[in-house]
Amino acid sequence: MNAVELIERKRDRGRLKGEEIAWLIASYTDGMVTDYQMAAMAMAVFLNGLDDEELAAWTGAMLHSGAVLDFASVAAPKVDKHSTGGVGDKVSIPLAPMVAACGVAVPMMSGRGLGHTGGTLDKLESIPGFRTQLTPAEFRAQLAETGLVLAGQSEDLVPADRKLYALRDATGTVPSIPLISSSIMSKKLAEGLDALVLDVKFGSGAFMSTIEEARRLATTMVGIGTAYSVKTVALLTRMDTPLGREVGNANEIKESIDILQGGGPDDLVELTYALGAEMLVLADRAASPEDARGQLQEAVTSGRAFEVFQRVVEHQGGDVRYVQQPDLLPEAPSVHEIRAASAGYVTVCDARRIGISAMRLGAGRERKEDTIDPGVGLSLNAKPGDAVEQGTVLATLRYRHPARLEEALRAIDGAWVIGPAPPTPMPVVVERVD
Amino acid sequence: MNAVELIERKRDRGRLKGEEIAWLIASYTDGMVTDYQMAAMAMAVFLNGLDDEELAAWTGAMLHSGAVLDFASVAAPKVDKHSTGGVGDKVSIPLAPMVAACGVAVPMMSGRGLGHTGGTLDKLESIPGFRTQLTPAEFRAQLAETGLVLAGQSEDLVPADRKLYALRDATGTVPSIPLISSSIMSKKLAEGLDALVLDVKFGSGAFMSTIEEARRLATTMVGIGTAYSVKTVALLTRMDTPLGREVGNANEIKESIDILQGGGPDDLVELTYALGAEMLVLADRAASPEDARGQLQEAVTSGRAFEVFQRVVEHQGGDVRYVQQPDLLPEAPSVHEIRAASAGYVTVCDARRIGISAMRLGAGRERKEDTIDPGVGLSLNAKPGDAVEQGTVLATLRYRHPARLEEALRAIDGAWVIGPAPPTPMPVVVERVD
Repeated sequence: MNAVELIERKRDRGRLKGEEIAWLIASYTDGMVTDYQMAAMAMAVFLNGLDDEELAAWTGAMLHSGAVLDFASVAAPKVDKHSTGGVGDKVSIPLAPMVAACGVAVPMMSGRGLGHTGGTLDKLESIPGFRTQLTPAEFRAQLAETGLVLAGQSEDLVPADRKLYALRDATGTVPSIPLISSSIMSKKLAEGLDALVLDVKFGSGAFMSTIEEARRLATTMVGIGTAYSVKTVALLTRMDTPLGREVGNANEIKESIDILQGGGPDDLVELTYALGAEMLVLADRAASPEDARGQLQEAVTSGRAFEVFQRVVEHQGGDVRYVQQPDLLPEAPSVHEIRAASAGYVTVCDARRIGISAMRLGAGRERKEDTIDPGVGLSLNAKPGDAVEQGTVLATLRYRHPARLEEALRAIDGAWVIGPAPPTPMPVVVERVD
Repeated sequence: MNAVELIERKRDRGRLKGEEIAWLIASYTDGMVTDYQMAAMAMAVFLNGLDDEELAAWTGAMLHSGAVLDFASVAAPKVDKHSTGGVGDKVSIPLAPMVAACGVAVPMMSGRGLGHTGGTLDKLESIPGFRTQLTPAEFRAQLAETGLVLAGQSEDLVPADRKLYALRDATGTVPSIPLISSSIMSKKLAEGLDALVLDVKFGSGAFMSTIEEARRLATTMVGIGTAYSVKTVALLTRMDTPLGREVGNANEIKESIDILQGGGPDDLVELTYALGAEMLVLADRAASPEDARGQLQEAVTSGRAFEVFQRVVEHQGGDVRYVQQPDLLPEAPSVHEIRAASAGYVTVCDARRIGISAMRLGAGRERKEDTIDPGVGLSLNAKPGDAVEQGTVLATLRYRHPARLEEALRAIDGAWVIGPAPPTPMPVVVERVD
């Protein structure tokens, strides 16, 4: 086969056969097809798309570019959740222990933050000692023992995606529905799951700005999961405002622990339980969403979910005292308050501006090689619907360097809009795709 | 500036500013923008196009990526001709001396053959000793002295095009009108011309298969030339059947010498004079095309055009005896005849099949690194309109290796179609774009 021929075909809106896609991805992984050929192909796919069959083949070729996990030795059904990323999205941290406490194995592989979105691994690493890179043997043993792993993706899983993602990042070919969905789904399929729940976000702080785009992405990913016999459901969820009240790393761990202890802000509770209910039903551990919610609630009130979390922290080398006494978690020394310029109701509390502001403080990465400061971040005191007076604190920024505070303040300018009347309350979960 | 931003803009059908294009091409030339970024950009340009302003900026950026020739010291008007390539297209070889003999300086830079199309440099190198790589000083001195140079492009002219062309070849981004026209025109503009005549071919043996595509390419190139104050005219010419009766290298030199001596086949004569007339008129050396044709005719009948050619051969190190006695030119030892299977009139004599057949014999290159055998090729005895009996020789193939003859015969299968009536005679020159 010949890379140029395949590029030309896709360029001219033709179809690629399954074996051609398999050859292309395998040859790219081992370097026979060059980066510049794959860049041209990625742009042709970006602009001309892939049909369902091509997409299934593309995902399968990525999936088989490296090792595939096999958890057959773990008896419990294996279910994971994936979010397309947002601001303040710490849902995985309370959700995974809650679901694991209900008898589902959760081999959760998460990512790092980039740009204005945070990453579960970065947040977990606020807990001193917590290791997110496990060997395949450690991963498997812990899953069997505790029912839960919260780790990064192992290096030998889906190498084609690592290579292709870096290339897409440098060639303006990231936001393509077939390329995003095959990237996400190839990694999830390599985890050897029985079921998968997707949190596909839309809005200012999300990758997809409109619900239409989110729906297309969700439908595409659910189609791939189904084609590979993994029961897959997606929730379309709003990401115009950060989830919860904390944006950063250590402070998001604290808020996650609140949820595990029965507290936490409403929007975060709503989304955590909605995703958890889907996971339990898909795993056949609950007869209905209501039954599932009851079980999740019980896992929290009984303390079992928090116990699972503590056990996982210990297993992965984390100092469990920081989880038991969250006040020990790192906290930057200085504080700056943002106050309301006028009285009224918060109508907008913009996720993107707040996410960028948190990144500027040092809670996120502008470039992959940047390091994270776990103790900086924002606490939001006023979110849409809240009534404020002139001078009410809208947010508290916790910072280490005044220069970074300045940048963060520039980025956050205009994040809050205050109007004369409260906005219509909006649920976080808007639609379900299965 | 940032390559990813520019790629994303073109991907989303946005416009690139002149200074952005200048930065992109300069950065690509010096390696700051990578091959894979340029490949993604080339595919985005292929699929989304460039508008007139962008295209002028792109061409200008390529033009200024290296040295630009300056022939201000040559008093005569400088005019060149460029052909988009075809089969049996040896027009440059008789045309350039004819025009130079009429007092126009012709700094002609030609290319090599690739695929089914031949290259003027390869043909000229059939003349033992003929050097096509001249230093800029040699080039300038010979132009001043003889009024004509027939050489390859010097290495320091338009380095961006050399790099980008190789990349396009490997990434399925060759047949794009903005990329083709900026590639051709940047090289021609770097020659420091006063005027340029373009031979834009269409048909089975051409790069563009339809007249509509050829017209778009011609209009685009004429627009670029005009934007850079180089008087530019294009002729749209038919390339369904090879030009003349000889396809190869040494045999095409012989046919070129026939033209210079007042002979040669009609189609080749028609095209040579049509292009020459345009060149003389643009150079202000003729009052009208008729006047120009008269001058070109006189340059041939007086022997002056052939004298110029001999002088150029000598200047460029060629053994002039081979030009004076063309029978000395290399000729492969074996001959195979293709004969008509039935009686009738030739309605098709397919340029592409014949071009590929000549390449298989060794007269052309499948890959850039292949070497040329100057003594192999085809002589066509029957072209469209010719009456044939069953068994009439349609073509004679001159070959060196039987295995190559086999390949050539496979490629040429179906090249001739014989029908009951002669086809409507078609002129070679179909349209003029200025």
